[in-house]
Order: sequence, then structure tokens, then C-alpha cells
Amino acid sequence: MDSFGFRQEDSRKAQNPRNPTTRHFAPLLVAIVGLPGRGKSLLSRRLARYLNYTHDTTKVFDISEYRRKLYGKYASHDMFRADNLPAWNIRQQSFKLALEDSAIWLQEKGHRVAILDGPNVSRAQRQMIYDLVHDQLNYRVMFVECVCEDPIILEKNFKDILEYSVDYKDMATEEALKDLKLKMTHYQTQYESPSLGSHWELPCPIVKLLDGGYGGVVAHGVTGVTEAKILAYISIPRPTQQVLYFSRHGESEFNVVGRIGGDAALSPRGSKYAVALAKHIHALNLPSLQVWTSTLQRTKATSEFIQAPQQHLHELDEIYSGDCESLTYEELQEHYPKELALRDCEKLKYRYPQGESYIDVMARLVPVLTQLESETNVLTVSHQAVLRCVLGYYLETPFEEIPYFHVPLHTIIKLTLHGFSYSLETIKMPIECVNTNRPKPSDCSVGRSAEDVLVTIPTHFDSVTNLTSCN
Amino acid sequence: MDSFGFRQEDSRKAQNPRNPTTRHFAPLLVAIVGLPGRGKSLLSRRLARYLNYTHDTTKVFDISEYRRKLYGKYASHDMFRADNLPAWNIRQQSFKLALEDSAIWLQEKGHRVAILDGPNVSRAQRQMIYDLVHDQLNYRVMFVECVCEDPIILEKNFKDILEYSVDYKDMATEEALKDLKLKMTHYQTQYESPSLGSHWELPCPIVKLLDGGYGGVVAHGVTGVTEAKILAYISIPRPTQQVLYFSRHGESEFNVVGRIGGDAALSPRGSKYAVALAKHIHALNLPSLQVWTSTLQRTKATSEFIQAPQQHLHELDEIYSGDCESLTYEELQEHYPKELALRDCEKLKYRYPQGESYIDVMARLVPVLTQLESETNVLTVSHQAVLRCVLGYYLETPFEEIPYFHVPLHTIIKLTLHGFSYSLETIKMPIECVNTNRPKPSDCSVGRSAEDVLVTIPTHFDSVTNLTSCN
Repeated sequence: MDSFGFRQEDSRKAQNPRNPTTRHFAPLLVAIVGLPGRGKSLLSRRLARYLNYTHDTTKVFDISEYRRKLYGKYASHDMFRADNLPAWNIRQQSFKLALEDSAIWLQEKGHRVAILDGPNVSRAQRQMIYDLVHDQLNYRVMFVECVCEDPIILEKNFKDILEYSVDYKDMATEEALKDLKLKMTHYQTQYESPSLGSHWELPCPIVKLLDGGYGGVVAHGVTGVTEAKILAYISIPRPTQQVLYFSRHGESEFNVVGRIGGDAALSPRGSKYAVALAKHIHALNLPSLQVWTSTLQRTKATSEFIQAPQQHLHELDEIYSGDCESLTYEELQEHYPKELALRDCEKLKYRYPQGESYIDVMARLVPVLTQLESETNVLTVSHQAVLRCVLGYYLETPFEEIPYFHVPLHTIIKLTLHGFSYSLETIKMPIECVNTNRPKPSDCSVGRSAEDVLVTIPTHFDSVTNLTSCN
Repeated sequence: MDSFGFRQEDSRKAQNPRNPTTRHFAPLLVAIVGLPGRGKSLLSRRLARYLNYTHDTTKVFDISEYRRKLYGKYASHDMFRADNLPAWNIRQQSFKLALEDSAIWLQEKGHRVAILDGPNVSRAQRQMIYDLVHDQLNYRVMFVECVCEDPIILEKNFKDILEYSVDYKDMATEEALKDLKLKMTHYQTQYESPSLGSHWELPCPIVKLLDGGYGGVVAHGVTGVTEAKILAYISIPRPTQQVLYFSRHGESEFNVVGRIGGDAALSPRGSKYAVALAKHIHALNLPSLQVWTSTLQRTKATSEFIQAPQQHLHELDEIYSGDCESLTYEELQEHYPKELALRDCEKLKYRYPQGESYIDVMARLVPVLTQLESETNVLTVSHQAVLRCVLGYYLETPFEEIPYFHVPLHTIIKLTLHGFSYSLETIKMPIECVNTNRPKPSDCSVGRSAEDVLVTIPTHFDSVTNLTSCN
């Protein structure tokens, strides 16, 4: 296997998965390696978002932030020259502080993965990481090298750095680009790229990601499930420019009368929304538009006029409320007062009898979210609880807030990737609909009165003479 | 990136993940590629076991089985010569039949992954696979090439083929080894190894697995979550010789009085078992022995005398019975008769109020099972329901039977990998204990009598004057 640059025997011995001292389920430090503009920070943030959502509590430690704290405002590329010793000392100190902080953070209960985001270009630095985390703490270490030679991807990455990096926010574009290129040249002279196989300097896993995944991935020494999970996540290439659209189904017959769950048809106003949604989406003229919906008739009917390939996915079906399907909140309070109180108390973890919780929905959404993250120009038509979980993923909403995320009917939600995070825009269509958002009541005790429960229920057709419009 | 044998731009265009015609969640055919003795079949079976357990219904289609059906008893390597045209026709026909069957199988509802296990050494064969599955069916295709150059692994693989292959079961060892080597030589002349990157012949994912994973893994064009899941699974190297030991904790104070769940201490007889278990395990003199237990005191106490590194994992904790924790079956019948009936009706999916189901336990075990599969000489000390799920994984027990798997107390269970599957041995320690196995009652209706429910409850201290020994 010389063409891949490694021989196997030696490294197999070095990385013996049967070594009993290996702490299989110990916390993990992921150290990123790569030149400037190779997509390291975007990868770190995306990976952290994914790991946090899938219950591996993760934090990114960005070495450049430490450097800015120590050094103050960025002056020029000069500080990255190999022969600039005072600046080198500061950079080295930033590296050490970030490493130490990540090690301290990993030692706290429940913390699973620390991502050390920085160039980590020298063998000496990587050895320090390994010595501290593997040998001293007896934790796990993994390196991910971002290699990028595709000129189109590089250009886009450089553009992003100029637009979003704190270092360049006060510098004119042309000057900044020149500076960034010199910074990169300095780093290139200091770059000791990790080899693979028996030439790889450390007995721990290393993954080489080529052109952000578009060029493939090479992994060596992966023996732990968290490392394998990370490999799976990063092996799928994800665009650096991304726009995703979301909408709930149009108002349904059940929405009108305040019933939850079920598989009702659209109301007349919901059908109008379907027409308006298609018109709005078509006007955007999105290249390679796709539509993903749930398998329930109200989402399929909502997207039926859109000219685009459609996929109907069970994962996007509304939270299943089990024994409580098709009931109104009033009926829930009448027949299941204890269940409703328990749900109000802890809506995130509460599971309907024979049904699902928000946590369950979040778990079943993971394959769809991972896939959706590799797309652009997808319109996802789904349901209130599901879209709360979906948006919670992209916007990194604290878990406890996810069940209260406001996702109104007849509203298009647009997420755009800006730098490392997503911005949200909402486009309200001018078609009346009921409000289905029920805020948390102030009294969530099992013994509360029915009045206390019903006060937060949004008005619907059964309880008022006129339909209210959603807010 | 010439050192990895591929350039990125071309293949990125070819494998555009934003192509709207891609059916992201369509069924997947995994075609294995490789010379004889490269671990293809073991990989296929292991992968199928893992995918089936994680709800991606999978079946292996072994081309050599089709060849045996068409050709009858294996005669000699001669049939694999490139210039043996009649034999080539039979081999080609076997390939086509297996491919067709896998395509037919994939079209059935709920079927997710077909693994085409065979050499698939020619470009023409791979093109046929792609044309049928990708172009005609509009499904997904992925190739996994098994490359092995490590002489130690190769020797072990060859030994396994001689021992387990139907082709060689009636041939003397020396003759068989000579024949196998000649068979391999014939295949080598016909082998068109897939290149990576832009040289890779097809616009679909390809993964190269080196030395069974010990040499690393190279992936290209992975864009789907199922492919990424497969990549993660196969990237962890797994031994070809493997022995795993399992035991429930010693009899607990709760077992004695027939209570479920909880975190009770060992009974005096349970403590005796802990001593006997350590003595038995030490006598085996297992190299690099490890002990994995749950975090509950009864498993920790059971393993405390064993001289080996120990890990205590929440994933191995007993099924959580929520509101029903610490109750006896008699109390369950008294306070939760409907729940008990529902559980008896569908024990696999039934979830205790605020607790877990077997399906939940299976899901939380996946990381531990995946990790354990890469080990040997591990003793796992856990609980009845959890070990049912663990053994169900290795033995590929139909899901519905898992909750009724007989895992008695004071018994060591040994799993040994033989060829592609595990054999089970039980070693009963001569220390009395209660029986905790409750068979499915004949009447599972909600309206059944208490008598009908209690008839299958194993005797325990509260209901009889003498403790019974387990069967």
C-alpha cells in the first residue's frame, strides 16, 4: 500500500486495539491540523454542533482567540514569520493555553469532546497535545488534518476569512488578501504535515480530509466508536455556501379545531397556503431545488404544487403523541390531567404514553439532519415539533428551549450559512391561520386547576366563534 | 494529492451531492471487491449483523454459493483460470444471479442494504452492478475493496478458508492450501483493482479497507448517511480470532425476593459467585483480560475480585423500569395490571412508564457492542435484559425472541468466533441461586385473571418457604 504512503504492520502494533490500558470510553480531544484557509474552523464548528446534538457534549477551543487575547488587535502577517521570535512565543503560549483549557474542560463531568482548532503545524505541538491528553490524563486523542488543494474551494475559503475573521475586519480587502497570502506562506514553511501509517508520528488515530471531503478521506488507527462517529460525519462533504428553507404544512382541519397529531387534510386556508408557497418558491428560481416532506397528507398536499423532485420521509413525521393522538388540549386535560402536567413540567424529555418525546424526535432526525447539511436549496415541509428540533440543530438552541421554539403556520423560514453559523429569516405569507403555539403555563404541578392549564391554550374554532389569525 | 492517487476536482463534479436526482434515502447495494483470502466474507457478515441490529435490514448475497449451486461440488482451482471459458461462463452466471437476487430483494418493502459478497474483480462486473442498481433501479451503490498485504493476517485468513469453506471441506489440508494459492494466482491475473479519485471508474462511493482496517481506510465519494455509517463501522479493525465472556451479576438481594430493577447489593450466595467467577476466570489465564461492568453495585461487586482493568459503563445498566422499579411481579399485577398485560403482549417494544423498552436498551448498547466487537478476552458483567440484547446481537437472534433469551444467574457465557459466526458455551457455577426467568404467559390480554398472570412468575423467597435453585 505504498501508494497511500503507509505500511501496515508497524502501525498495527503501535495502535493495538487490544491494549487493556486503552480507555475506550474516555473523553476525546480532537486536534485539527492544517494551513490557513483549509476550512478548519468551519469543520470544527459543524462537528461540535453535530456532536452536541447527538449527546456528546463538545466545545471548540480556537487558538486564534487566545492569540488575540494575549496579543491584542491583529497587526499583520509578520507575526506568523518563523523567525519572529517574540511573536512565535505568543503563538506558542496561545497554543498552550488553549490546550490546557481544553484539557481542564474535558475533566469536567459529562464533557465528552474538546476540539482544538488551530494550525498545529509542528510535530512538537502535536507531541505536546498527545503527552498531555493521552499520557497524563489517560484520555483519547485524534488528529484531523484538513488538506485543500482545490483552487475553487481555496478561493471561497479565503473570501470567507476576509469577510468573517476578526483579524481582518478593519483591513481593506486588497490589503487583507495580500496579508492572508503572506501569512499562509509563513505557515507553509513551518508546516510539518502528518504522514500516515507507520510514518505517522503518534500512536493515535489520524484522519486526512481532502478538499473538505470532496476529495475523499483517509483514516488510520481509528479504534474507538467516537472517532468512528466523527469519521463518518466528516466524510460527507458539506457546502460552504448553503441556504435551506423550511415550512410547516398549511393549516390543517385538525389545527382549526385544536387537535394534536393525526393525519388530517388541509383546511381551505391551508390549501391556499400551498398555492402561495409554490408561487413564492418558484419566484426564487433556486437551482437544483428539492423538496423533502413528511409522509403525512398535510405536508404532501402543502408541497404538491412545487415543481421539484420530492422525497417523503418518515423521519419528518410529526411527534407521535401515542394514546393522546387527535385529542384537543381540553380533552387532554379532561382525560390525562397528570400526563399534561408532566409534559408541561419537562416538555423536552416527556414522552406521550405509547408515543414519543422531543428527545426521541431529535434522535430519529439525526440521519436526515446529517444528510440535509450536505445539501443546499432544499425546502423541508414538516411539522411544528419536528421543525423545532430541526431548527434547534442548525441554530444550536439549548435543548430545554427547543420545545418552545416559535414556528408559526403559513411562514417560510430561511436559514443561510454565514461564516460558521446560520442566520434565520422568516417570510410570513398573507394567509390567515390559527395559532398553534402553546407557551409553558406558570403552574405545571399535577394538582393545578383546569383553568391554570387551559389559560395558555391558543384559541381555536371549538372555543371561539371567530377564528383568530396567527401571530 | 497525488500521493493518495487521486485528484479532486473531476470526481467532485462526478459525485455532486447536490444532484437532485440522487435518492438520498434509497436502498443501498454494497458490492465487495477483493482477492480470495482478503476477509471479504467475514466483513460482509459482520457488517450485515451490525446493520440489521441498527434497523437497516440487510442481507448478504454470496456469489460463491450461487456458483456451487450451478456447478455442484468444487473440483479445483482450474475453474478460476482466466482461459477456462466454460468455467468463466458459470462464474459470470453466478455473479449475475446473485446480483439479480440482491436487486430483487432490495425492492421489497423495508429492505435497506444488500451486500454482494464476491471478488467482483473486473471493471465490467462493477459497471454491470452500477448500471442495474443505480441507473435502472435508481438506488444507491457503494463499493468496498478489501486489500490485504499483511502476511500474518493473510495466513490467518487462508487458514480460516481451509477450515470453514465448503469448497475445501473434503480436501486434504496440504492439497487445499496449494489449490487456494493457485486460485488466488488466477484471480490476481484478472484483478482490475479500483483506483481512487478521478481514476475511479464509477460516480459512486468507494472505500478501500487495508488489512482488515488495521492498515487504515480510504474513502472517496461518500455522500449518504448509510454509506458514512458503513464507513464508520468498517474503519474499526476487528480481530479474526475472538473470545468474549459474559456473566450476569451474582444473585442480588432483590433477586431473592423477586424484585425487578433497583440497585441492590449481592445476596450471600451472590457474593460466593463473585469469588467463584474470579477463580474461574483467573484459571483461564487470558492475555490482556479486561472487565466491563454496569455502574450498578451488584455488577461491580461481582467483578471485584478479578485482577484486570475494569470499566463501569452506564450503557450496561439494567433496563430501566421507570415507575415500576423495585416492584415484584405480584405488585406489578396489583398496581399496574394493564401495563403488565401490555408488556406480556409485546415485550420487545413495550416501554415501562417513564422507563425503557428492549428496543431502547438495544439502541443504547450500540456503541458498546461496536467497541466490544473490536476486542477479545473481555468479560462483560451485566444484567438479564441487557445481556439478552448483547447476546442477541452476536448470535443474530430474531428481535422478537431477544426478550425471552435464557440468561440464568451464576453462569458464565463464552462466545467464540468460528468462521463468520459465534458459538455459545455456558459454564454453570455450582452455587445455588433463584431463577429469574419468566416465560411468556399464554394469556396476554388486558382482562386476564391475576392467576393467569402469576402462573409464570418464578418462585422467590416471598412466595415459598425454601429458595429454589435456578434451572
